Amino acid sequence: MASYPQESFQNTTFEYNSFWWGRRRKIRKNTLHSQLGILKDTGRYDAFRLKWHPTYEDGYKALFWDSDVAKWLEGACYFLAQQEDIEEDKVIDQAVRELTDMIANAQWKDGYLNIHFTVVKPGLRFTNIRDLHELYNAGHLIEAALSHQHYNKNSLLLDPMVKYVELLHRTFGPGAGQIHGYPGHPEIELALLRLYARTGNTKAYDLAKYFITERGNPTGAQGKHFYITEAAQRGDKSGQRPAGDAWPTANAFWYQQAHKPILEQDTIEGHSVRAMYLLTAVADLVRHSRDIEPGSKSFEGYKTACERLWDNMVNKKMYLTGGIGSIDQWEGFGIDYFLPQSTDEGGCYAETCASIGVMMLAERMLQLDLNGKYADIMELALYNTVLGSISQNGKEFLYENHLASCPKRPMKREDWFDCACCPPNVTRTIGMLGGYMWSTDIKGRDVTINVHLYDQAELRFEVDGEQVNFRQSTNWPWKGFGVLTLDAPSSLNVTIKLRIPSWAKPFEDGRIIILEPQPLSQITPVKSYITLQPDYTRNHVRIPINFRFSSSTFETRLLRHHPFANQNTITIARGPLIYCAEDVDNKWVDDHFKSVRISRNAKFEVSTRYDSNGEQYTIVTAPAVKIDLAGYERLKGTIPGYTGDQLNDLQKKDVKVLFIPYYYRGNRGGMGHMRVGFEIEDEVLPNI
Amino acid sequence: MASYPQESFQNTTFEYNSFWWGRRRKIRKNTLHSQLGILKDTGRYDAFRLKWHPTYEDGYKALFWDSDVAKWLEGACYFLAQQEDIEEDKVIDQAVRELTDMIANAQWKDGYLNIHFTVVKPGLRFTNIRDLHELYNAGHLIEAALSHQHYNKNSLLLDPMVKYVELLHRTFGPGAGQIHGYPGHPEIELALLRLYARTGNTKAYDLAKYFITERGNPTGAQGKHFYITEAAQRGDKSGQRPAGDAWPTANAFWYQQAHKPILEQDTIEGHSVRAMYLLTAVADLVRHSRDIEPGSKSFEGYKTACERLWDNMVNKKMYLTGGIGSIDQWEGFGIDYFLPQSTDEGGCYAETCASIGVMMLAERMLQLDLNGKYADIMELALYNTVLGSISQNGKEFLYENHLASCPKRPMKREDWFDCACCPPNVTRTIGMLGGYMWSTDIKGRDVTINVHLYDQAELRFEVDGEQVNFRQSTNWPWKGFGVLTLDAPSSLNVTIKLRIPSWAKPFEDGRIIILEPQPLSQITPVKSYITLQPDYTRNHVRIPINFRFSSSTFETRLLRHHPFANQNTITIARGPLIYCAEDVDNKWVDDHFKSVRISRNAKFEVSTRYDSNGEQYTIVTAPAVKIDLAGYERLKGTIPGYTGDQLNDLQKKDVKVLFIPYYYRGNRGGMGHMRVGFEIEDEVLPNI
Repeated sequence: MASYPQESFQNTTFEYNSFWWGRRRKIRKNTLHSQLGILKDTGRYDAFRLKWHPTYEDGYKALFWDSDVAKWLEGACYFLAQQEDIEEDKVIDQAVRELTDMIANAQWKDGYLNIHFTVVKPGLRFTNIRDLHELYNAGHLIEAALSHQHYNKNSLLLDPMVKYVELLHRTFGPGAGQIHGYPGHPEIELALLRLYARTGNTKAYDLAKYFITERGNPTGAQGKHFYITEAAQRGDKSGQRPAGDAWPTANAFWYQQAHKPILEQDTIEGHSVRAMYLLTAVADLVRHSRDIEPGSKSFEGYKTACERLWDNMVNKKMYLTGGIGSIDQWEGFGIDYFLPQSTDEGGCYAETCASIGVMMLAERMLQLDLNGKYADIMELALYNTVLGSISQNGKEFLYENHLASCPKRPMKREDWFDCACCPPNVTRTIGMLGGYMWSTDIKGRDVTINVHLYDQAELRFEVDGEQVNFRQSTNWPWKGFGVLTLDAPSSLNVTIKLRIPSWAKPFEDGRIIILEPQPLSQITPVKSYITLQPDYTRNHVRIPINFRFSSSTFETRLLRHHPFANQNTITIARGPLIYCAEDVDNKWVDDHFKSVRISRNAKFEVSTRYDSNGEQYTIVTAPAVKIDLAGYERLKGTIPGYTGDQLNDLQKKDVKVLFIPYYYRGNRGGMGHMRVGFEIEDEVLPNI
Repeated sequence: MASYPQESFQNTTFEYNSFWWGRRRKIRKNTLHSQLGILKDTGRYDAFRLKWHPTYEDGYKALFWDSDVAKWLEGACYFLAQQEDIEEDKVIDQAVRELTDMIANAQWKDGYLNIHFTVVKPGLRFTNIRDLHELYNAGHLIEAALSHQHYNKNSLLLDPMVKYVELLHRTFGPGAGQIHGYPGHPEIELALLRLYARTGNTKAYDLAKYFITERGNPTGAQGKHFYITEAAQRGDKSGQRPAGDAWPTANAFWYQQAHKPILEQDTIEGHSVRAMYLLTAVADLVRHSRDIEPGSKSFEGYKTACERLWDNMVNKKMYLTGGIGSIDQWEGFGIDYFLPQSTDEGGCYAETCASIGVMMLAERMLQLDLNGKYADIMELALYNTVLGSISQNGKEFLYENHLASCPKRPMKREDWFDCACCPPNVTRTIGMLGGYMWSTDIKGRDVTINVHLYDQAELRFEVDGEQVNFRQSTNWPWKGFGVLTLDAPSSLNVTIKLRIPSWAKPFEDGRIIILEPQPLSQITPVKSYITLQPDYTRNHVRIPINFRFSSSTFETRLLRHHPFANQNTITIARGPLIYCAEDVDNKWVDDHFKSVRISRNAKFEVSTRYDSNGEQYTIVTAPAVKIDLAGYERLKGTIPGYTGDQLNDLQKKDVKVLFIPYYYRGNRGGMGHMRVGFEIEDEVLPNI
């Protein structure tokens, strides 16, 4: 393996004491180690040695242990690849080497590689790719191998995975002796396309294309839907549902986004992680198909499908936090505008992995269409559901990211989960954060740098052997000004595109951003990006370019749901951050803030706090009222419903609510009472 | 069969041109005939001849044909029992006689009686009483036989049913050779207790008691839950769900209210009709157990369970209309306060039969505890969901009673349904309406008449061979005054108890009701009933007693949901009537009123309309605004959520909304746009 295309995550360095530097350092020094310990304690680490483990008795609990290890390995390699002289890294590096050996040794002669179907059910490989995560595991192993290759600059892990891909390519496809199927949990598709992008492996491309284009074919396998034929072949009864209760009804293939071909899907449905991983691959397929099959029109339909499903998701099925999925049973999407805040209000799931999937899909969509609407949501998910899913000390996690707690589901972090997809997924996502931050487009001597996210970081890459350095220095997410510094050969035509957040508010003179030195021409955002042309950048090489947004851009905003969501609530936001309140700051709370109402005219006060590590964050306080719920009970008429005069009699108590950034919740003990959206206080009905 | 206790439905005569006289007349002259025609056309009528019918191929569609016929028969006999010289009655009477013969002839020698398990699956009786409605059918046949006996004064239908009960009594019970089970769809329990009350059949009482007390026993059948043991015996796979998709998860016995013993159930769960029928029987068991097993403490726990589950239902799981059940999949209850108005808002079911069940349960609870909270809900369900489920011409029906229509579920009535439980259920319920209206309690020479509902009607009964006539004449549900007339021997001690609705508003002097002639002592309601003592009634025999509520009692009220229901809506009510708007009166509507908002300070104007039959009803009009939804789309930020300044820019159009009583909806054509609860218009967020 010689050279491979540069990806921006590989070339990004976060600067000391920036927002993300601190978090990444905590993951490197704490999370990688605590997760490695748990991988070892639970048997996952040694599972590739192919010995029996008591957990296998259960039949299902260890089904995706391969992927748990693979995601940790992928994340570890991202961090190790960034040379920093950290003593503790040696332990991680040693584990990476040992795992690499174990995984390579676990491979069958024919290329097959899976713990469950080697140790537990060796005769049953590829008999239930719908339910048993077989190819999902393969996908994560491929991604791990790519990260491993990037770090170690060898192919000790990638070579076995390429061999496995060749087996899969022989096994699945439209040919007579092949299985005409596709996995129930997408992941391998996007991994195959990453493998193709890195190495040019066209078998990987072809297989991903087959999985994507065949998906949902109603007559693809012996004249029937593949999942029906596959189930019949293994002796399932007609209409039999998978183990577990994810399918609320028989043949609920929408759970797997396979109820119809992707081109025909109008709304985003089913398990939210699967949906995001699938569409990430679809968007990548569109991108790569332009190189490999130029002129093919059919992929434009897939681009339209991605856009249609993205819009349905963001406009009608996404929480204000960037979380997706309101239905607990299938860990996924409900109907349009169905976005209750908590389990006791009808459902909320908002899985961490799903928001990671949102970031992945947004990143891919930005490659197809540089539109701030994708970057806004990527940033929203990053700063709220994704960042918030890991504790400040890096050792505790959230699987679900409810917008309100309730007695049955208090806000509480865990070390780990039996179904452990989320914790190592956060590790690897933050590990490759540079890949989300910016992207480059190099065509000959024309170089474009697209800035999607803001922090203090440097991007370094080469063009024809010449070095380009680009640096941004901001105080995001707290303040809206910063400095850009470009160092590039003057013979390069460098274009810089900066994202303007949708929540940016213009200055009094109408400008949305102010740059110094000022460009000669007026700068107007196109799809929420402004463009600094080569004639400007060439004159500002090694000269700092200052930029700032209006001061009101980072002030407190109040958000309301779309009225169809039936939420008479307001939510506080500042910049990309959504705010919540929790009992540790509001000790008087006894009902998860259900009875607390905030007036739309309340005065919101803002101040800065420093946590025990000296890390700053902005808090907001507001006056509110707490309704006497016992009063509701007393006033309850026997006709269900409350008349205005009854409501006017309710006892109210003035309180003050302190809000913190949503990501910061669950770090300081407390009773687990937390809420994002607060009911609006107003006068009640007149007595008529 | 000689004499049997009087029941108030038997002794009630509705007076010409009263509210319910008109509706009952329409059912007698239209509904009974149109339903008979459909019973014949669909094969149900002749099914008891035990010939094969093509519908049986389906396996499930005809499973409760027995009950469809039985409910019609029960209803027909209620109407026929009221002697009126109506020519068309002869057809009905002839059908009743023919059906009686057919049903009696369909009985097996050993007493068994069921179409499906005689014609379709003769070898499988009592192998799946969980799913296949076998005992549910038996229950409705018993109720039909009781009504038949009341009308025909013979036991041509009751004798076979008693014989069937004897077979069931031998088959089910705690004995060694007996089945330790109970039906998945309760109904037979309440039928058995009605049979006991009429005839004193203690086998019926014992069997009902067994079914109720055994229900939900986790170890009742071979050490396991009966439904698990029964399923295993017929070869079901572990965790296999019933045909159809009613169970969202495996072993969802809460669907049948059998997840735990009734005494341990804290919240009302599952299929709403089953829940109501079961609790109706439980309340009846408590009542009758006081006679048959005096001193038994255990039944008091069942009374407490009924009260606890009633309160949970009414306070947290009932729509403002008296409808219950928000979840389509299992036709039943969601979590507390989960009450979306329509399918596209997260669910609404509110089955007609469930509201009939609410009336039944309320009527039984009133026998245990004369408390207006039961009668209020009984009246609410009657005037809204039950009355509204049948069209003004008596020939079209509603199975579900949503509070708002949506594109997928427009407001539309049907002649009939494949699953035809509701239409004949309404027939029989209105047929025995006198039983809900009032009740009597006779102990020696002490007679109490409890008035639960108001109309123009007369109650006639005998005490020791002496006649008592009691008449009420009101203009309910439009106005709150009336006249009571008592004709009774002066040697009787007659007490009259009148219900005060919870929505009654006091006069300025604080009195809640004014009576003329005035009683000597102050009248204060106890549990929402006032008492006219014998010393007062004795002095007012054959002297009209006028009563009236304050004029504001029947004025427009605005109702709001409990705040936990997340509904920022107001609903119009007048007296017991809930109001809605539909497009036929509001032709500008194009979105099921989703974008229409009404101010809490709107001026509501009231007027009277007369329909094509000259029947009056009160309408309400109010100014409103219609929000430009296209505006929402345009203003949509890419961050999900809307800031105040965006919302202030929305286009609004002034409109006027005309509201009609909910029961009157769907009678005059239109596009099927309808809504009960309207979002509240107020100023939006300030720009901060």
